[in-house]
Amino acid sequence: MLSFNRILLFMALLFTGLAQAQSNDSLFIRKLADEILLRSQAYENLRVLTKNIGPRLAGSSGMVKAEKWGLAAMQAAGADKAWMQECMVPHWVRGGVDKASTMVNLGDGKRGISLDVVALGNSMGSGPKGVTAEVLEVKSFEELESKKEQVKGKIVFYNYPFNATFVRTFQAYGDASKYRGQGPSQAAKYGAVGTIIRSMSHGANNHPHTGATRYDSQYAKIPAVAIGLEHADQLSQWLKKQSLQVKLETHGYFLPDTIGHNIIGELKGTEFPDQIITVGGHLDSWDNCEGAHDDGAGCVQTIEILRAFKALGYQPRHTIRFVLFANEENGLRGGTKYAAEAKEKNEKHIFALESDAGGFTPRGFGFTMSETQYQRVLSWQPLIAPYGCSEFSKGGGGADIGPLNRTFTTPVAGLQPDSQRYFDYHHARNDVFEAVNKRELELGAVNMAALIYLVDRHGLGQ
Amino acid sequence: MLSFNRILLFMALLFTGLAQAQSNDSLFIRKLADEILLRSQAYENLRVLTKNIGPRLAGSSGMVKAEKWGLAAMQAAGADKAWMQECMVPHWVRGGVDKASTMVNLGDGKRGISLDVVALGNSMGSGPKGVTAEVLEVKSFEELESKKEQVKGKIVFYNYPFNATFVRTFQAYGDASKYRGQGPSQAAKYGAVGTIIRSMSHGANNHPHTGATRYDSQYAKIPAVAIGLEHADQLSQWLKKQSLQVKLETHGYFLPDTIGHNIIGELKGTEFPDQIITVGGHLDSWDNCEGAHDDGAGCVQTIEILRAFKALGYQPRHTIRFVLFANEENGLRGGTKYAAEAKEKNEKHIFALESDAGGFTPRGFGFTMSETQYQRVLSWQPLIAPYGCSEFSKGGGGADIGPLNRTFTTPVAGLQPDSQRYFDYHHARNDVFEAVNKRELELGAVNMAALIYLVDRHGLGQ
Repeated sequence: MLSFNRILLFMALLFTGLAQAQSNDSLFIRKLADEILLRSQAYENLRVLTKNIGPRLAGSSGMVKAEKWGLAAMQAAGADKAWMQECMVPHWVRGGVDKASTMVNLGDGKRGISLDVVALGNSMGSGPKGVTAEVLEVKSFEELESKKEQVKGKIVFYNYPFNATFVRTFQAYGDASKYRGQGPSQAAKYGAVGTIIRSMSHGANNHPHTGATRYDSQYAKIPAVAIGLEHADQLSQWLKKQSLQVKLETHGYFLPDTIGHNIIGELKGTEFPDQIITVGGHLDSWDNCEGAHDDGAGCVQTIEILRAFKALGYQPRHTIRFVLFANEENGLRGGTKYAAEAKEKNEKHIFALESDAGGFTPRGFGFTMSETQYQRVLSWQPLIAPYGCSEFSKGGGGADIGPLNRTFTTPVAGLQPDSQRYFDYHHARNDVFEAVNKRELELGAVNMAALIYLVDRHGLGQ
Repeated sequence: MLSFNRILLFMALLFTGLAQAQSNDSLFIRKLADEILLRSQAYENLRVLTKNIGPRLAGSSGMVKAEKWGLAAMQAAGADKAWMQECMVPHWVRGGVDKASTMVNLGDGKRGISLDVVALGNSMGSGPKGVTAEVLEVKSFEELESKKEQVKGKIVFYNYPFNATFVRTFQAYGDASKYRGQGPSQAAKYGAVGTIIRSMSHGANNHPHTGATRYDSQYAKIPAVAIGLEHADQLSQWLKKQSLQVKLETHGYFLPDTIGHNIIGELKGTEFPDQIITVGGHLDSWDNCEGAHDDGAGCVQTIEILRAFKALGYQPRHTIRFVLFANEENGLRGGTKYAAEAKEKNEKHIFALESDAGGFTPRGFGFTMSETQYQRVLSWQPLIAPYGCSEFSKGGGGADIGPLNRTFTTPVAGLQPDSQRYFDYHHARNDVFEAVNKRELELGAVNMAALIYLVDRHGLGQ
């Protein structure tokens, strides 16, 4: 048995060791922050990706350009090895300018009004003549159900508002997005000929927000558009006083699946080369915007972490993969492929982190992992909090790393930037470079780099 | 002596009581949040203040209009009583369009270049002919000192950058702002005829940022301008290769002090009417912008808290004063008067809170108070954190409530919104309504309302 004094000595050494480790970590994280805040390429990379390349939906020419750019950017940032991982991606095409119009009597006779709309991703066109029908407004699926006898031959207008009382806007999105996903088929089930969905946004503007819908193959694939908030309110007000016919013109269709790629840069691990840490964002964007927040930000942060590690001469213990995933928006084929190939090759994935919630000021991370792993992560909170991510919580990750988590129960985490402005831009034409703040973007990369560094140094255990 | 069982019973009752109190508080704060997030007038009030009234520097016609608006807004929000508290304010006038120009040889002969500048507040004009002189660039006061023999007859260009490695931008401001405050007189001391100051900003644009300078009466009051960051970098690059003459034209002067007002709305306390809680922002802004973040946001948040309390029928225990302070920017006469009159009337001020750091997403509060009071405040952190203010720290308050703290040692606090974007707008022409996000502004009001409510319910002790 150890004497009490020896135990004391042992504990003193242990604490000194721990304190020393924390102090070394703290110093290195400070270096990472200085490197990124003083010499970041993230903002300039974002400018090139959004302004020179622009929209890059799966299958589009923008996708091909973005992939080429991504590979070159990984090489320029200093990857030991960079490659393209092939996957088949869906190829939805908007096909034209989406339109909606109506004739309204504003007290001085009827006049034609154009409504600001955008077709939902994956939705089918209205045909060359468009679809003209009376509008039936419902606030919810419950109301649709109660009015199902009236739906046949109508255009159903889902006017379900983003709930302002949820402090975190992702809660409002989770609450409302079912109308975008299931609304068209739910309406078609009762014979509707078209759908208009109130945009998923709090934005004080009229930009319509697209996003994927999912047709149920049992029902007709009716045209579906999202409408800007001001026009949604206007339409609702008019409908209180008069019945209205709306003409919808959309042009969406699918071409055959085509070849897309995940873009992967790698730093080889010095001690555990076979154990892989993944950090990434998704390279595709919707076709109606520059995809600056969604998810250009996550891509350039990912590349920036690689650049900063290399610039500081950091030699990771584990292999770190920096990944720009393909086709998050309307298929998740990139993330699915990444996990499937990892399984085929029997790779060991010890952690994955994604940034796909915008390039806003960082506030925290959400973690999906075991309680023991979460407790370890919590012990690092004081090291990361000074850079903005003070809020650690359970739950969270990212769409593209979801398949990794489901395949291997790999622990995953998601960067949680401040969410207030995200749905002002999400999937709308104003998601452009100018909407991203340079320092907010960079600080996101700083916090992510710190977390990746800590996982690499200390591991996560089981 | 109590038996162990009775102690247990006592403790159980105590905890039940505490839990009940926390639960009541939690419910009321949720009501405040819902009231503000669903029915806030803050954003519309900000639109009126910035777009219909606009710039409102002390002494200007905008100040007079803003005061009238403020009084009406306090009444409309439901104040038991609202009044204007007179104070004398300085009356600095810009007097014309500030200009700076130079002739640069870019390899193909000299050409004239206009530099984007704005005269510093309180600075004196250059005279009708302007001031033309060679530019001497220095990075710091230390460099000025080392070059003092070369200063005579020159325009000193302080090119001290905002330090990007400070995570909180107010640290960078604290670090750099001495060049704006003392730079002109430090240069004049060695015979300089003008000064150009690099703007206090991280902004990825070229807007020059004004702000108050303080002449030392021992030295000549030489013209002083701030220059946009892109032009500061450009000027510095040119100066590496050639000597340059710059012509400065500014027009600033003082009119005699004039009458301004603090605008005060009051809810009378039901239990302790003689104990006063103050919450406020400042009504004045610089003359070159709409003053949306600085500090229209603080004003409309203050009014919104009053409106929400009244809308919920809340009867405060203590008297709560909602104050729009006069002349924060170049004199602090409003805050000084408020404390002086409180002292004359022997008022008891138990707490004051200010919002003067922009209408950005709330992150925390800074507190200047006794340790006991701070511990009490910390115990409320779990009640407020769900609305955004999770970061409580020591130190902080606000310029306008500083005199109250110095006069009575009144405990004070300042709302700390995220600081990353503040100095992109601060004192520059782009500090306009459009730069404020509706929900971020409202959430600031929610967090402030929660804190004011908790102080009112439970007091702060000594």
